[in-house]
Amino acid sequence: MSEEPKEEQTDSQEESKKEEEKGITIKKEENIQEWYQQVVLKGELADFSPVKGFMVIRPDGYAIWQRIMDYFNIVLKEMKVKNAYFPLLIPESFFKKEAEHAEGFAPELAFVLRKDDEKDRLAIRPTSETIMYDSYGKWIRSWRDLPLKINQWCNVLRWEVSDVKLFLRSREFLWQEGHCVYATEDDCEKDTKKVLDEYKRLAEELLAVPVLSGKKTEKEKFPGAKTTYAIESFTPEGKALQLGTSHNLGQGFARVFDIQFVDKNEDEKTPWQNSWGISTRMIGAIVMQHADDKGLVLPPRVAEHKVVIVPIMFKGKDKAVLEKARDIRDKLKQYNPILDDRDEYSPGWKFNEWEMKGIPIRIEIGPRDLLSNQVIVVRRDTGQKQPISIGNVGKLVNKLLNEIHVAMFTKAKDFLDSSIIEVEDFETFEKVMKSKKLAKGLFCGKTDCENQIKEKTQGTSRCIPLDEDKKQGKCIHCNADCDTIIIFGKTY
Amino acid sequence: MSEEPKEEQTDSQEESKKEEEKGITIKKEENIQEWYQQVVLKGELADFSPVKGFMVIRPDGYAIWQRIMDYFNIVLKEMKVKNAYFPLLIPESFFKKEAEHAEGFAPELAFVLRKDDEKDRLAIRPTSETIMYDSYGKWIRSWRDLPLKINQWCNVLRWEVSDVKLFLRSREFLWQEGHCVYATEDDCEKDTKKVLDEYKRLAEELLAVPVLSGKKTEKEKFPGAKTTYAIESFTPEGKALQLGTSHNLGQGFARVFDIQFVDKNEDEKTPWQNSWGISTRMIGAIVMQHADDKGLVLPPRVAEHKVVIVPIMFKGKDKAVLEKARDIRDKLKQYNPILDDRDEYSPGWKFNEWEMKGIPIRIEIGPRDLLSNQVIVVRRDTGQKQPISIGNVGKLVNKLLNEIHVAMFTKAKDFLDSSIIEVEDFETFEKVMKSKKLAKGLFCGKTDCENQIKEKTQGTSRCIPLDEDKKQGKCIHCNADCDTIIIFGKTY
Repeated sequence: MSEEPKEEQTDSQEESKKEEEKGITIKKEENIQEWYQQVVLKGELADFSPVKGFMVIRPDGYAIWQRIMDYFNIVLKEMKVKNAYFPLLIPESFFKKEAEHAEGFAPELAFVLRKDDEKDRLAIRPTSETIMYDSYGKWIRSWRDLPLKINQWCNVLRWEVSDVKLFLRSREFLWQEGHCVYATEDDCEKDTKKVLDEYKRLAEELLAVPVLSGKKTEKEKFPGAKTTYAIESFTPEGKALQLGTSHNLGQGFARVFDIQFVDKNEDEKTPWQNSWGISTRMIGAIVMQHADDKGLVLPPRVAEHKVVIVPIMFKGKDKAVLEKARDIRDKLKQYNPILDDRDEYSPGWKFNEWEMKGIPIRIEIGPRDLLSNQVIVVRRDTGQKQPISIGNVGKLVNKLLNEIHVAMFTKAKDFLDSSIIEVEDFETFEKVMKSKKLAKGLFCGKTDCENQIKEKTQGTSRCIPLDEDKKQGKCIHCNADCDTIIIFGKTY
Repeated sequence: MSEEPKEEQTDSQEESKKEEEKGITIKKEENIQEWYQQVVLKGELADFSPVKGFMVIRPDGYAIWQRIMDYFNIVLKEMKVKNAYFPLLIPESFFKKEAEHAEGFAPELAFVLRKDDEKDRLAIRPTSETIMYDSYGKWIRSWRDLPLKINQWCNVLRWEVSDVKLFLRSREFLWQEGHCVYATEDDCEKDTKKVLDEYKRLAEELLAVPVLSGKKTEKEKFPGAKTTYAIESFTPEGKALQLGTSHNLGQGFARVFDIQFVDKNEDEKTPWQNSWGISTRMIGAIVMQHADDKGLVLPPRVAEHKVVIVPIMFKGKDKAVLEKARDIRDKLKQYNPILDDRDEYSPGWKFNEWEMKGIPIRIEIGPRDLLSNQVIVVRRDTGQKQPISIGNVGKLVNKLLNEIHVAMFTKAKDFLDSSIIEVEDFETFEKVMKSKKLAKGLFCGKTDCENQIKEKTQGTSRCIPLDEDKKQGKCIHCNADCDTIIIFGKTY
């Protein structure tokens, strides 16, 4: 950086070369899977568990989840959705009530050995539609009880996964599942889409992760749903990553779980339902999207600590530097800064550590800075350094945090947009799938046709964008007349 | 109430007699178990589940848990404890590593049918010492890694319970479990006791539930712990209710899970550990302690909505009353008031409803109130009514909420204090146990002696108060020389 004063380089440069071996030892471009794993492990977001298929979410990973929960709890409150908690174990007979749901989740169930009823085994919840709707059937009597809007934050277990990818795939994960009941189809559909929009906003405005959003095809929809909507991010390795789903369940579950209400005219009616969820997979999406060869790059709005202050100390001169560093920490309190005043590590070691942990902004202050009443401010996303007089630090930090968010989002959005290739024939489609991009074109929507496409190209339909105009034409694969534009891609 | 203006009585009195049958149909004094169940069910805090031994925590119950979590997360932050999340399933071999722990939890384990390793079955966690300490063994290397302070909010499952008492006893419940590792015995013991004090503060200052606090005897301590501390409330039916425990685990778990650290002198050392937890049982304690024959009485600091405003409306006069009610709602925003403006229910029905739900303060406003620019403010805990000019409502609500907390706590504390009977001989001890009170006296602390006492009286040791002076004398049961004062009682 040309603005950097010469003397400051000397303060810290010699140290920053040391102990680099503790950093990420593989490049994102070389092997994204191994790189991802190193970033998550060395960034201390999560760890493998001795139990196959499971993961441990470490404090720095959980802090991100906590911020996602805090953000979304405000959305829930605005939508008048209330949190509750339903049992972990669900009777097998409950799953069997809805045929598609039963079939879809059968491979995922882990039953417990203990039982009170020999005929009805208990499974650990893979999702809670059935156990919740059994209670809803008891609670809902009249139009006065509707809408009923309940969410739960909990753990779920889906056994089929066995090769863990931390946050992205594991048998157990944390999520929220919202389950609402409405008197009318219209209210139900409105909220189903409203949730999709809120998920998109969360991904983009909190996590700086741009997403595709739209409707799923028949083949890809949730078992038991009438319509499934989803948001998906697109990772640098060219795979779509489903991050949230919102299902209009229609009246199917209500019928089998005997949920009925008496309307204002005293007529017995069947209500409409939706369900929707996001999970700790969101944390994996942040890493995949933003992290680099030095480690994590946390989006500022989700970073628990937005700033780390590293005093550059030498024996004898320590006291004044440390005091000034403390002043700055106190001034930046609203950004929950870390002051790394540990004696046992060198500044260079600390730089590497906090870069690996993705803190958005680093502030360095050494004895020579003190003389000129300035500090060096370093952006994690670009590495850009700039000296700034101490009086202006607060203002700069505030400005930079916004700039970093926008820069991270824009970079990712440009990548997503440039990865979507419009296709009009199957030859181009195949090439796009091979080149790990997303193909956008007309598709008939038939499950048979989609199965054939998957077999030939490994590509699957990701979503039907909702804001796309209808267009008369032929299906890119089977040539049938159709009018729906769909995005295809490879997925996890 | 003598201050109540005559005309106001007429506005609401006729309505309040109606539909009383929907209220609690049994008195607390008649049958406290049935009364308790009705209060929890009709107050919509929880419901039974179709799965035996399990419960559903409904939104109003979960809101209390959320406030307990919010409160305690601040305490955790002050103590530098970080939240994390560990796997739901634990290998059987992990339990077997610590002999007492294995024996203590064996009856509680529910194993899953799925397995990857034929020899090592997986159990749903009844508590997470073993799975967490396995990771700790990997993470802790040097004195720099200590103290390690981690907490998790999660569900746990203990199979032995089968007859559910909502919140008080169920196979699955929600809790927090803190698990910390220290370089020195002193730091460990200090934090173990600090947590006990924080639990006591939470119970008393947030929930208005006074508690006994102290050390457990050998017989009653946690399987695998060196020392267990606990807080216990005392219910109107004369039973002690354990609400929180804090265990100094010593070095036993560290040894079997191979947790070691290199100290500043490069010597290999074994660290010290503690673990501690509180659960959704807290919600049951609130109900047992404070609720009355009309239903719930929520302690103000834990009530999500501290005020309910009920406009008394008659056709034609509605608009002005409703407008004023809205004004008052807006003014009282910080108390998160409910304005019950539903057309389909009468004021009397609403009074009963909100009394059953335990909202601390009700504000009534009718057309005649409007004329005299006043409202009627009603305390849920005492039923006291008072008219107040509209301009002073905010100030009065603030004052009343504090008064209600103090009154609820004081009433409960007086009951607890007057229930502790000092005993010096076993005959008196037996009488005290029969009369459903707590006996306080000298006890030798031997497990044999304690077993005999339990057999004869059903009484068990509850705690060794920490603030009690030592006193030379004889054990009230076996007459052995001893110096420790212990409180005995019946328990759940």
